Amino acid sequence: MPSEFDLIARYFARPTPQAVLGPGDDCALLAPAPGMELAITTDMLVSGTHFLPDTDPRQLGWKTLAVNLSDLAAMGATPRWVLLAGSLPDADERWIAAFAEGLFACAKRYAVDLVGGDTTRGPLNLCVTALGEVPAGAALRRDGARVGDDLWVSGQPGLAALGLAQLQGRTQLAETLAARCVSALQKPLPRVELGRALRERKLAHAAIDVSDGLLADLGHIAERSGVDAELFAAQLPHLPAGADPLLARDCQLAGGDDYELAFATPPGKRPALAELAAELDLPLWCIGRIVGPKNELRGDVRLLDENGQSLPLTRKGFDHFGQDKP
Amino acid sequence: MPSEFDLIARYFARPTPQAVLGPGDDCALLAPAPGMELAITTDMLVSGTHFLPDTDPRQLGWKTLAVNLSDLAAMGATPRWVLLAGSLPDADERWIAAFAEGLFACAKRYAVDLVGGDTTRGPLNLCVTALGEVPAGAALRRDGARVGDDLWVSGQPGLAALGLAQLQGRTQLAETLAARCVSALQKPLPRVELGRALRERKLAHAAIDVSDGLLADLGHIAERSGVDAELFAAQLPHLPAGADPLLARDCQLAGGDDYELAFATPPGKRPALAELAAELDLPLWCIGRIVGPKNELRGDVRLLDENGQSLPLTRKGFDHFGQDKP
Repeated sequence: MPSEFDLIARYFARPTPQAVLGPGDDCALLAPAPGMELAITTDMLVSGTHFLPDTDPRQLGWKTLAVNLSDLAAMGATPRWVLLAGSLPDADERWIAAFAEGLFACAKRYAVDLVGGDTTRGPLNLCVTALGEVPAGAALRRDGARVGDDLWVSGQPGLAALGLAQLQGRTQLAETLAARCVSALQKPLPRVELGRALRERKLAHAAIDVSDGLLADLGHIAERSGVDAELFAAQLPHLPAGADPLLARDCQLAGGDDYELAFATPPGKRPALAELAAELDLPLWCIGRIVGPKNELRGDVRLLDENGQSLPLTRKGFDHFGQDKP
Repeated sequence: MPSEFDLIARYFARPTPQAVLGPGDDCALLAPAPGMELAITTDMLVSGTHFLPDTDPRQLGWKTLAVNLSDLAAMGATPRWVLLAGSLPDADERWIAAFAEGLFACAKRYAVDLVGGDTTRGPLNLCVTALGEVPAGAALRRDGARVGDDLWVSGQPGLAALGLAQLQGRTQLAETLAARCVSALQKPLPRVELGRALRERKLAHAAIDVSDGLLADLGHIAERSGVDAELFAAQLPHLPAGADPLLARDCQLAGGDDYELAFATPPGKRPALAELAAELDLPLWCIGRIVGPKNELRGDVRLLDENGQSLPLTRKGFDHFGQDKP
């Protein structure tokens, strides 16, 4: 059986032109550009909790990296470096080779270097740390939303949750939609270009990536900003054809794992955002607005019908230790 | 049952004076000092592989952070920031509170801020990423050892492995030694001050922390530097009184989990190192030297008796996927 060091050398040691020193020492060495702040995030993916145990390793490699790059995207940061720590039940070389292939495909797509990591034996668990750069003071934080801001979301939130329902046999999607949803689940595309453009063009006061679910993540923006959020049911993204509309709406509002961006923009930016959507070939939906807090408990998210009446919300986003698990 | 967000807020959200933005957003934001390079490392600790399942959570919290700070120490970097990702089988608040207490005790001792992380449900797995700063070009790498360098090791390598043998009932240590060895195993003291002094005083060409075992880790220095290493049996650290000498020697040469530093120093630095040992109140042992590679296969480590004859080496350091597991 190949050793830990052999496996690392064989599958995870690639050139790291963006690092002073890559894998193989006690630490990697990085030289951030002058005037830049570092955005850093870490995410742990556990078999059975975050992905189905039989997930294709190539897709898992992509996703393990993608979910972290999504956090950088949400700050408007430019991804630069990543580290990977992994616990594996055994040294199945074919699995590892396919996982590495997926991971490096994503690394190449988003121009990041894998500069270090750790491998060990144990239940399947993958932990990536990702670092990006952002000009000092310019990061898109969660806490900057202001009363009067529009609320936007990119792409088609909910597809990943529909894909999961499909794979678990809980629904039967039309064939082309099924493929699209399963791809959204297994090979998410972090919105790095969108986040960067929002930051460079000063289009957003606050941003977040939709990983816990649209309602939950907008709640995070509202709470951190000390405001409330109102969504307009009539302005939510069109539901995809070929799915049960009730399930599709549920997935759109509360399904996790999407990695779209939700963001609060200053009034008057709608034309600039329409232009950006066309440039990126990515739908951007103006779905609501930021309002003053209704009571002491800030961070409330309400869904309003065409008459301005609150619609009942039955599900919140996914909370790993909470009681209302999907 | 408290939610993931509640648990983070309650036990892991502490002030982060060294960060631009701490936990609670998509990323943490850091502002490295001008002229500094970042040293970054990640280590994953798995229950059953790296620690006994019934390990005291307070000690585990300390150790989880300490093993990462040790990698920074080995580069001569000053620890600044850490992130923690953890997978827990359940939200046992008492366990989490004790773990956080140990982690923050270590963070305080070494003046690092916990700036971000991730918590999830799954088999117990803890992954820390640690970042430190080091002046550009000054880091202590593994690949800088030169023929003629002395080889040194700090402290008392082998105590941690003896402590593990004691806890597993494989040996019966004298009482005071047992306490010392178990403490070395459960509450290692990363040699941050030593690494920093070696770097600032230009005393070392190469350094590594002894996590895989002394022979294995010196082998990493030798291999990366394209040289061989020779250790002198008569110069190895004195074995602790109160342990079986054969076991103690075995633990000293091949026991992992020590977190002492091993380093290669230019000739003529022995007086400066003696002075440093006294300053730090930490034994430093000159145990060998760097020699030219004997053959194509660089990185050989030999143990020589008083007549310069090679002694047989039966065990290498711990390799998580290799066959020669301890």
